[in-house]
Amino acid sequence: MNILYDEHLDGALPPTDKADVLQRLQQALPDMTLLHREEDLRPFECDGLSAYRVLPMLVAIPHTLEQIETLMRTCFELEVPVVTRGAGTGLSGGALPLEQGVLLVMSRFAGILELDPDARIARVQPGVRNLAISEAAAPHGLYYAPDPSSQIACSIGGNVAENAGGVHCLKYGLTVHNVLAVEVVTIEGERMTLGAEAFDAPGFDLLALFTGSEGMLGVITEVTVKLLPKPESAKVLMASFDDVEKAGKAVGDIIAAGIIPGGLEMMDNLAIRAAEDFIKAGYPVEAEAILLCELDGVEADVDDDCATVRQVLEKAGATDIQQARDEAERALFWAGRKNAFPAVGRMSPDYYCMDGTIPRRELPRVLKGIAALSEEYGLQVANVFHAGDGNTHPLILFDANKTGELERAETIGGKILELCVEVGGSITGEHGVGREKINQMCTQFQPDEITTFHEVKAAFDERRLLNPGKNIPTLNRCAEFGAMHVHKGELPHPELPRF
Amino acid sequence: MNILYDEHLDGALPPTDKADVLQRLQQALPDMTLLHREEDLRPFECDGLSAYRVLPMLVAIPHTLEQIETLMRTCFELEVPVVTRGAGTGLSGGALPLEQGVLLVMSRFAGILELDPDARIARVQPGVRNLAISEAAAPHGLYYAPDPSSQIACSIGGNVAENAGGVHCLKYGLTVHNVLAVEVVTIEGERMTLGAEAFDAPGFDLLALFTGSEGMLGVITEVTVKLLPKPESAKVLMASFDDVEKAGKAVGDIIAAGIIPGGLEMMDNLAIRAAEDFIKAGYPVEAEAILLCELDGVEADVDDDCATVRQVLEKAGATDIQQARDEAERALFWAGRKNAFPAVGRMSPDYYCMDGTIPRRELPRVLKGIAALSEEYGLQVANVFHAGDGNTHPLILFDANKTGELERAETIGGKILELCVEVGGSITGEHGVGREKINQMCTQFQPDEITTFHEVKAAFDERRLLNPGKNIPTLNRCAEFGAMHVHKGELPHPELPRF
Repeated sequence: MNILYDEHLDGALPPTDKADVLQRLQQALPDMTLLHREEDLRPFECDGLSAYRVLPMLVAIPHTLEQIETLMRTCFELEVPVVTRGAGTGLSGGALPLEQGVLLVMSRFAGILELDPDARIARVQPGVRNLAISEAAAPHGLYYAPDPSSQIACSIGGNVAENAGGVHCLKYGLTVHNVLAVEVVTIEGERMTLGAEAFDAPGFDLLALFTGSEGMLGVITEVTVKLLPKPESAKVLMASFDDVEKAGKAVGDIIAAGIIPGGLEMMDNLAIRAAEDFIKAGYPVEAEAILLCELDGVEADVDDDCATVRQVLEKAGATDIQQARDEAERALFWAGRKNAFPAVGRMSPDYYCMDGTIPRRELPRVLKGIAALSEEYGLQVANVFHAGDGNTHPLILFDANKTGELERAETIGGKILELCVEVGGSITGEHGVGREKINQMCTQFQPDEITTFHEVKAAFDERRLLNPGKNIPTLNRCAEFGAMHVHKGELPHPELPRF
Repeated sequence: MNILYDEHLDGALPPTDKADVLQRLQQALPDMTLLHREEDLRPFECDGLSAYRVLPMLVAIPHTLEQIETLMRTCFELEVPVVTRGAGTGLSGGALPLEQGVLLVMSRFAGILELDPDARIARVQPGVRNLAISEAAAPHGLYYAPDPSSQIACSIGGNVAENAGGVHCLKYGLTVHNVLAVEVVTIEGERMTLGAEAFDAPGFDLLALFTGSEGMLGVITEVTVKLLPKPESAKVLMASFDDVEKAGKAVGDIIAAGIIPGGLEMMDNLAIRAAEDFIKAGYPVEAEAILLCELDGVEADVDDDCATVRQVLEKAGATDIQQARDEAERALFWAGRKNAFPAVGRMSPDYYCMDGTIPRRELPRVLKGIAALSEEYGLQVANVFHAGDGNTHPLILFDANKTGELERAETIGGKILELCVEVGGSITGEHGVGREKINQMCTQFQPDEITTFHEVKAAFDERRLLNPGKNIPTLNRCAEFGAMHVHKGELPHPELPRF
């Protein structure tokens, strides 16, 4: 395997002459917006993970496909790295700029190109907001299913890059299950269409490979998504528990009973109290945990499912079960959940949001483990999460102004993710790896597997110019992180290149 | 990109000393079954595409994972190519052996390792038959959804390699949507797990990349599949039409009405008559086309859907609509469809089964085009297919003993696939590319795209030892096939390596 030794990948990139790059890009693309002064670059220094900030060398804001092709070709020739940014709402620093790189901003690609209600597809540009697709489809009784919490602001291109999830993903799938095709431009400036409107495509499944690839394989320039019919009816049950582990077990029981809820969310006491204080959603503040379970579909079907879920919840030890009486109460129940993060933010100067995914059956064990870590390190942890798909979001509360609290929060966070991996889960459910969790990738994967990722990356971008230093760690980084066993200074596979 | 010039890839492989390879393998693997005499090799000379036959150099039938690892490592060192074979039911020659290669037969990996009805997953070895998974899950009210026609015989490892489909895939997805994880062994003998029980996995989606990769990236040694609850109720409607195009349009209308049937199949007059003659299913032999539409789910839901579909069919011009009165009649309606291929086989000495996929809205146009080709070349074409997902299976009837008929059948077949590509579809829906459709890949994809496939392949198997000559054509082959525009003997991208 021919992967080059590249010691600068994780840190400082080779020195680039900013004035020279600027001039070359201005020559090649006289009509493209190109920002280079510090005050213009400042707004782009971070994405939704604002703890990490880097001023990009240059910001490019193209408005035609041809400009993107030329931009990529020029950066490829100059060997200047490119980071692509959607709406900048990502929570793992996937769009964190590089000091020596170009930040490609896709905000001008914000058009819905085609909406075919009969074929139930929409062809859109990557800068279109997630919610805008559902809004455009609403007159036809259709919607786009994946609904990250940021759906008002986040863009579909970023959703594809991160394989975004949301409350509805348990039943309706992640982004990868709802995208039919993407058009991409490679680092060499070539345009390709991956996937098709047709049900299957021959050759390797490059569409799935691109989905969730965090901007490391190419730039997404167009997305064709599936639209789904809006369910006829939706009802929500709220169950209270006097014990977090019992609530965790009930989640698995509901699925095992043959029900796939439209949403199945869990909150623990700390999260319940925070949300109730903020939203007045009618939550039981004395409960140790609540489950919110939404059933959707045809009316008769929903009624049947509600009855079944009630039985399962009673058997699992729920101390109280309420069904939202009307649409207004249903909206209120959800408002508490959807505002839980800002609600927790009101309780603590800082919090650190984790995103580990585990097999559902391990929920009780992992919740117990998180409680033990919280006690051991003396920091509160609130749990608010997509319980149905095992996607936990522990929020670690701390005060960055108190010495040592940030470090302790990071330690707990790392240990929670290791626990997720230990029980057969993964270090990210929907927020991506980005810059934030690159060290934990060393826990999740073996050196052989990480090498395979690098080899796949090299098939698209051998010069490693697309979003370097994100998503896939180098083996050297893993050795430094300590997750990999290093004996007398030797990596376990000394024959592997130490890129 | 560093892909080696390799002129022998598509044809004769470099000469290998069979006696030497045999001796080396026997030394490395004294306990593994290794067939080498012509009479022992003969049963393995073809898969389900029996028009293509090649005697393998050697056949290896391991029974432990360690044997597979050693076998791969040894073949890698000796640079001997490896073709992996499941149950040998594939229809595109994906398991066609190589004269100078080892055929790895997975038949001894036939155990169900774990079946967890609560988590609704089964962990199985690749040689387990598709139907055996559903049989094992049946006592728990569960089943494995993808159901290729060959499900009695085909194995799950082959299903993953070909991303197999079936009648139920319209509603429940292809193999890729129903597999959670695979364990694979690479050509270098390394074991990897791709995917996870958890809902999403970080890093690139190598699980999706492997699914449908036709044995070119590694050997599948274990598969974890999703199990679904059996629907409470299933009802089937049979609608007759006096015009094939009207039936084709009705398919799109049903989906546009917000219904996703459990199965939505179409047969034209030739197929109807063949099936009725063979099965006596009660089909209307005078109809130009029938649609079989199965609705499944909760009883009340199914009744609602049946009423809606009836209205749509009437509006689309159905001349008659029958609902199967009971389970026996429902089984009979399906028996006609499921035996349509052998039924057509009774009408003609030979037939050639195509597998093009098209956007549903193009069904009327493509059916008209097929009829025109049938007339132009003087060969009958029967249409029996998964209409709901636009997966057509034209059966071209011919007599191989009549001079020129095979060639005419191949010409029609090629033109039908080109028509599929022209309307935005693809050259295969569920049978794979294999050896059969490797030339049509040149029609489907641009040279840049084919080059990308080769680069991805090289990330896993740089020496090109896994199933060479299948699935992805070389650019030289495309130039020879004539699908690529060659000007004065130059390929359109002369800078690309002509591997």
